Amino acid sequence: MGKLVIVGTVAFDEIETPFGKTDKILGGAATFISLAASQFDVDSAIVSVVGEDFPQQYLDLLKNKNIDISQLQVIKGGKTFYWKGKYHNDLNSRDTLVTELNTLADFNPVVPSYYSGAEVVMLGNLHPGVQLSVINQMTKRPKLIILDTMNFWMDNALDDLLETIKHIDVITINDEEARQLTGEYSLVKAARKIYDMGPKYVVIKKGEHGALLFNREQIFFAPALPLEEVFDPTGAGDTFAGGFSGYLAATGDVSFENMKKAVIHGSNLASFCVERFGTERMINLDKKEINKRLHQFKALTQFEIELN
Amino acid sequence: MGKLVIVGTVAFDEIETPFGKTDKILGGAATFISLAASQFDVDSAIVSVVGEDFPQQYLDLLKNKNIDISQLQVIKGGKTFYWKGKYHNDLNSRDTLVTELNTLADFNPVVPSYYSGAEVVMLGNLHPGVQLSVINQMTKRPKLIILDTMNFWMDNALDDLLETIKHIDVITINDEEARQLTGEYSLVKAARKIYDMGPKYVVIKKGEHGALLFNREQIFFAPALPLEEVFDPTGAGDTFAGGFSGYLAATGDVSFENMKKAVIHGSNLASFCVERFGTERMINLDKKEINKRLHQFKALTQFEIELN
Repeated sequence: MGKLVIVGTVAFDEIETPFGKTDKILGGAATFISLAASQFDVDSAIVSVVGEDFPQQYLDLLKNKNIDISQLQVIKGGKTFYWKGKYHNDLNSRDTLVTELNTLADFNPVVPSYYSGAEVVMLGNLHPGVQLSVINQMTKRPKLIILDTMNFWMDNALDDLLETIKHIDVITINDEEARQLTGEYSLVKAARKIYDMGPKYVVIKKGEHGALLFNREQIFFAPALPLEEVFDPTGAGDTFAGGFSGYLAATGDVSFENMKKAVIHGSNLASFCVERFGTERMINLDKKEINKRLHQFKALTQFEIELN
Repeated sequence: MGKLVIVGTVAFDEIETPFGKTDKILGGAATFISLAASQFDVDSAIVSVVGEDFPQQYLDLLKNKNIDISQLQVIKGGKTFYWKGKYHNDLNSRDTLVTELNTLADFNPVVPSYYSGAEVVMLGNLHPGVQLSVINQMTKRPKLIILDTMNFWMDNALDDLLETIKHIDVITINDEEARQLTGEYSLVKAARKIYDMGPKYVVIKKGEHGALLFNREQIFFAPALPLEEVFDPTGAGDTFAGGFSGYLAATGDVSFENMKKAVIHGSNLASFCVERFGTERMINLDKKEINKRLHQFKALTQFEIELN
């Protein structure tokens, strides 16, 4: 059983999609990552912060999934990070209506000592300076450091982001972000420019169009499972990252071949996430459903062809 | 060796992309379809029309690929169908600048008698009434009738299109067109509505995001090969259709398993088409290159995963 350090927001989300709207519900990158990773045989810890307004039931929920929350700091008198967003009709784009950083503004991450030698570090979307602080607290170079980020940091903290990227192994971003970061339209060329920034692996998330895994020699592609209903895309990218990092931490094998499987596991779990609002589907997900859908992934993509 | 009837435009295209522009060059759906199909062991015939301005060298080119052009009518004093378009920077959208139907306006398709019992009919993008006329000329129900169409006919000849669709087996359209035709955003639901219109199989082309093959029970997905350079998308969808129909005609096997292979062959050939303007890359394409890229397709998509 490998150890996994998860950094990212633990948040209140308020979501509107064409299919309905929520009140403030449980959200945040670290939340989705940890719930997905909890499907694998892994010791994981969340490094994050919330306010005193964060309900005990949410803390209990994470604890009951065997997620270490000893360094999920609860700031007295503080308020939890809050995001409110509205998705457009095609669900491929959204408007952020409210972002309140609250306790996240002064967050000093602390890696629990039991996890300072963890095999895998999953840096969920956060300020790149916070992500780097976590890397610096690791007493042993992890087998794999994975970083998720977004265009917001490219616009507002590019120098910090470029510094942090130097120290990681895998970056996960979406196709538009890969293009923004590199100025290259071709994703093949974009990946090549990103290797020169530090990462040895590039994962490009394309939402409903699947995900690409690149290293200098190989490319692997996993589609998103075509679904009857996509209800709420919130957290799908984080769920992908959680499945990816959780599987790699559980297996301890960071070869390209095993990363391919990790991409499939991540895509598989993300396909559940979007079927309900927020974390609802991820909280109540059993191994049988997961396995059934892995079979569907195989049927969707595998073929026999005569090659010379 | 199976027989394949190919219907569609044979045209002059004038193309501008971010990478350059052309004069009037060889284009048209039937041209791209037949060039792709010519990579397989198939007897194929083009049913189409051009004007007296159509160069003999283009006719010779098609003949030299063993394509029967006895019913590629050359109208004395007539002009060949002409399309001029300009692609936007991301190559995913384009503006049509000029469309001159010319001889196509009064086109009466004639299926060569040698082909009236052909196993496969590939109805390239054309007025659905012309497509239906070809179906009606087949003396024996073909094993497979494949129809490609576009939003233009949904906007301008929907009743004709719905009538023609009743008589076909496979429809190939892009994702936006599937949504337009059915009013369903989910492609899974869209495919289901299309079965009720007639086709047993639905192929949804997503350009750089790959292609989906549906029947009532199964879904298969083939990605587009990530490329260093996409130069000109013109004809990629037709090349896909040509590879798909050509492979099925050559093998004579219209099972879902074999259609999966046909989708891979179609995607593989389309990946070459976009690397140069117009038909340039398709005209000079050898089996070795094709086979090498099939290996890449396999590496891109195939994985081993433990399933319970």
